[in-house]
Amino acid sequence: MSLEALLARIEPPGDAAARAAQAALDAKTKPRGSLGELEALAVRIAAIRGTASPGPLTAAVVVAAGDHGYAARGVSAYPQEVTAQMLANFAAGGAAINVLAREAGARLVVVDAGVLRPVEHAAIRPVRLGAGTADATEGPAMTREQALAGIAAGAELAAELAREGIEVVALGDMGIANTTAASALCAALLPAEPVAVCGRGTGIDEEGLARKVDTVARALVANDDVADPLGALAALGGHEIAFLVGVCLGAAAEGAVVLLDGFVTGAAALVAARLAPYAAGRMVASHRSPEPGHPLVLADLRLRPLLDLGLRLGEGSGAALALPLVGAAVAILADMATFEAAGVTDAGR
Amino acid sequence: MSLEALLARIEPPGDAAARAAQAALDAKTKPRGSLGELEALAVRIAAIRGTASPGPLTAAVVVAAGDHGYAARGVSAYPQEVTAQMLANFAAGGAAINVLAREAGARLVVVDAGVLRPVEHAAIRPVRLGAGTADATEGPAMTREQALAGIAAGAELAAELAREGIEVVALGDMGIANTTAASALCAALLPAEPVAVCGRGTGIDEEGLARKVDTVARALVANDDVADPLGALAALGGHEIAFLVGVCLGAAAEGAVVLLDGFVTGAAALVAARLAPYAAGRMVASHRSPEPGHPLVLADLRLRPLLDLGLRLGEGSGAALALPLVGAAVAILADMATFEAAGVTDAGR
Repeated sequence: MSLEALLARIEPPGDAAARAAQAALDAKTKPRGSLGELEALAVRIAAIRGTASPGPLTAAVVVAAGDHGYAARGVSAYPQEVTAQMLANFAAGGAAINVLAREAGARLVVVDAGVLRPVEHAAIRPVRLGAGTADATEGPAMTREQALAGIAAGAELAAELAREGIEVVALGDMGIANTTAASALCAALLPAEPVAVCGRGTGIDEEGLARKVDTVARALVANDDVADPLGALAALGGHEIAFLVGVCLGAAAEGAVVLLDGFVTGAAALVAARLAPYAAGRMVASHRSPEPGHPLVLADLRLRPLLDLGLRLGEGSGAALALPLVGAAVAILADMATFEAAGVTDAGR
Repeated sequence: MSLEALLARIEPPGDAAARAAQAALDAKTKPRGSLGELEALAVRIAAIRGTASPGPLTAAVVVAAGDHGYAARGVSAYPQEVTAQMLANFAAGGAAINVLAREAGARLVVVDAGVLRPVEHAAIRPVRLGAGTADATEGPAMTREQALAGIAAGAELAAELAREGIEVVALGDMGIANTTAASALCAALLPAEPVAVCGRGTGIDEEGLARKVDTVARALVANDDVADPLGALAALGGHEIAFLVGVCLGAAAEGAVVLLDGFVTGAAALVAARLAPYAAGRMVASHRSPEPGHPLVLADLRLRPLLDLGLRLGEGSGAALALPLVGAAVAILADMATFEAAGVTDAGR
């Protein structure tokens, strides 16, 4: 499917389903609105799924890994080899996201979108747009063709998941230096100054942060083809980010709930939303990351995060932690009694 | 057991277990501290349970209902009959807490601590300290003997739950006008001005809020025996609050994790902490309520809430929504691989 055909399939969420869900919630035995953001979440999911009775929902976490040319600039607290090591850890079941996806009852899909050296394992889906990206301070991180291939592969996975009955697609990322790629994308697309969108990632020091800001600024200078979202994605992004843009768009096209994690998946969501304006209405923000660019992305996408726990791991960990809230929201809609059925006096407030 | 004997059984949480849990987390395949508040929660639970391997944990939600003389003052958006109606709804399984406890895999224990007219149902534990409290603006809401009986009954339930293997006790409340009782208790015990601790509860208007502030002020004037926590509980509290104080203290004595809900359970926790200084160290705050007194209570107890979703329902709904985070925290401690076992380079950050 062409990108244009994919984008054309993404429709606005259903207003009628949202109104019906709100009316259903207002008839339940509780003061109007007293479940706060959980009610807003239930209404949003109803709109996305196009029904006032969306639950229970089956979920998958898609964690995509890629390596980054930015790593050569000393922008991460960890050496580049950790990307492949963690990919192997995901495959072996020992990482945080393995534990958290299992706790949430979600399937975990592990994708190699372009790690430097491939990791052979039956549990890894090989997509491999390349062996890591080029250093974007010296020219584009990848070609437009690679970015398009990543989007197509992500959308293909989303279509597969939909066929298998997955209704919530949670996004996760792994890639040493990928908050630098996310920062560069946000700087180009929001737009914002590099210093406003660069943070400490997994834990760099003050000097590392200065190098990161400088790296993003250089990447923006070295690439003049960043005004359109696809150009920005190719020039500044990463293989796993391109793949996640495709998962976002594909899941939105399939009518799934797109559950974001932190800053890196937020950058992928921003690219997706710039390509398809209705896509953001099909997303749910799981948490607010300490990365300074993340609140800017969430505000741009008009998303309110469910959790604010200082999570800065990535991997989809925040999305997995928010999945029980998604389950609770649809369960409230499905299973609570009405004032009338329970014989409870409704003060109408 | 006398109150003194109960209080003497509440010990400080285990520092050694906390240190061991922190060391275990630091060896896991993730940057140090990158799971933020989830790691702090895991360490806290380890301290409370006295082991670096506390999970998985079995949970119960205890929701206690009571009626309040304050209701006559027009301080609630709902008529007093709703307390008994909701108690029946809990027993029948149609309320929010039924749905949320089930979603969280927790047992639900429903207690009539003193509803105006009893509700007969096999699923309701009758404690009944009285048929609602007296109007505290005209003298004590209940006697010290009633308050003590409530504490004893709550502690007895906590001991039963511990014998049955429950390791997390989540607290919930129901009672028309009970945020007024909670406000009065907080005003007396923090202490604070009535206007600083009175909020809109389930949804009163501006005039109702003014009546609520006035009611709390009158209750403080009408009762001069509120300097000690037991006196304050009897004079200003409610039957369900007295019972929840007992559950708090009993669960703390049993070494359970005490998971608080919102403002009313927070007021009960404040009384418990004033009686037993080590009790607060055995509590976890599930969420921050929009009630203005709640952040003051949490600050006093030195608790950071896990969720901030604008929940103002009570019933233990916020505690049930936070239970999956408790489960995730202990699962991270139990199930994640170490850097060494997974062969991942540890940058030591």
